[in-house]
Amino acid sequence: MASFLVNGWPAQSIDTADRGLAYGDGVFRTLLVREGRALNWARHHRLLERDCRMVGIAPPDPAIVLDEIRRLAPANATVKVIVTRGSSGRGYAYPEDMAPTRIVVAYASIPVDPEPARDGIGARRCDLVLGEQPRLAGVKSLNRLENVLARAEWRDPAIREGFICDAAGRVIEGTMSNVFIAKAGAVATPALTRCGVVGAQRERVRDLLAAQGIACAERDVPFAELAGADELFITNSVIGIWPVVRLGAWVGAPGPVARLIQRLVAADDAAAA
Amino acid sequence: MASFLVNGWPAQSIDTADRGLAYGDGVFRTLLVREGRALNWARHHRLLERDCRMVGIAPPDPAIVLDEIRRLAPANATVKVIVTRGSSGRGYAYPEDMAPTRIVVAYASIPVDPEPARDGIGARRCDLVLGEQPRLAGVKSLNRLENVLARAEWRDPAIREGFICDAAGRVIEGTMSNVFIAKAGAVATPALTRCGVVGAQRERVRDLLAAQGIACAERDVPFAELAGADELFITNSVIGIWPVVRLGAWVGAPGPVARLIQRLVAADDAAAA
Repeated sequence: MASFLVNGWPAQSIDTADRGLAYGDGVFRTLLVREGRALNWARHHRLLERDCRMVGIAPPDPAIVLDEIRRLAPANATVKVIVTRGSSGRGYAYPEDMAPTRIVVAYASIPVDPEPARDGIGARRCDLVLGEQPRLAGVKSLNRLENVLARAEWRDPAIREGFICDAAGRVIEGTMSNVFIAKAGAVATPALTRCGVVGAQRERVRDLLAAQGIACAERDVPFAELAGADELFITNSVIGIWPVVRLGAWVGAPGPVARLIQRLVAADDAAAA
Repeated sequence: MASFLVNGWPAQSIDTADRGLAYGDGVFRTLLVREGRALNWARHHRLLERDCRMVGIAPPDPAIVLDEIRRLAPANATVKVIVTRGSSGRGYAYPEDMAPTRIVVAYASIPVDPEPARDGIGARRCDLVLGEQPRLAGVKSLNRLENVLARAEWRDPAIREGFICDAAGRVIEGTMSNVFIAKAGAVATPALTRCGVVGAQRERVRDLLAAQGIACAERDVPFAELAGADELFITNSVIGIWPVVRLGAWVGAPGPVARLIQRLVAADDAAAA
């Protein structure tokens, strides 16, 4: 069950001429609403705004978006905010006065399965290799066919996430998450300057670690380096923080860094206005 | 003015939960209809079907698509056929029994400006560099944000097309077209094994040249090689064949290969059943 607002109006459909459909010409973010509070909203909105600017779309007024989120999700929901360049005629060129389309979708909350956060997950390395496109690196654009194809590589429910690398064998992200590695007290997450999506949860985790005096390097991480990890975990605004306990031949356990981050994120959510 | 059929039904809108919007999870082709005949239809449909298979979407029945094209475009129109993976809940994973969404759009024909085909066009080299993604190379997917950003680099109406290269400086395509180069009687078009879109017009041009005993190499073409061209021209199913007469410092004129191709394409269109 999902409910929708399109430019503030209840709707189940969008204009067939919308460039979001025609070209994936837009951006989106997905967040949790708990007891009417949009969790980690400041980072979600900052990233949505940055993504809009990266592709030349006028960003929506955050107060309007937040109001629409509250209308659709007065209690608990998973909410997706999509901003497209709007409707146009045929062709990649667009007029300067485009009116963007703002879509807010609220999905009914499903009960949280505590198991993956508690016990950790199995993961795999995807065969698909991410293309490098620095102009869109970090942007959560509507061009997500790579993620779809990577996620379609497996159906084994024991595997909850796939790690995706670039052509140089650097791990970039999970199909739906960002990746962190801890080794001998040092924490790192892949640099997302060539490809990948910067998640709001990733940014929060980095900020929360910094506030604890724990540096989190943002750097190239060769996939081979994961075999020497003390801890691996993935982050996503909906699932939260999931320790990885199996990745190919590597076997680990939920570790102190993942547990610390889970506590810090929970406290940050609880403290949100 | 445009008219639409969505899964065979007249519609101005599509389900907001369609994965074509959410992820660009689909493919499309654009073609001309003249006096009720879908021009170059066999190649358009073959490529649409191939693209569907490349991304794991069940291709539509060509007879149904052609019937819908005829319903929407009994005389003259530009027609776009979009096939998405269909509607689903949130998340990149999808069930095995997805029902694809088939969208046929007919745009009213606008009078053809004879000037660019006759006199040739000015073109530029785009700053945007295409990412390499062999899994999607050649596919006309709904992930076209690179083309949108490349086309947004200029507004000078004297420039009708932008050439886009990959990171190694190989020319791949135009923002909306495929590229051909002729030099000393040899014709070539960029290989599209790493990125780029295989256009139906490109495939027809290669077939028509082959039928004349003229080999057209499909190979890597360094952008620098264009400076030594005798002729450059671009191909697209809607615009046809446009000679390029200016590209940066390079100045040319419509040449015998482009003129031959224009005649062959016109004859092929006239001969279509």
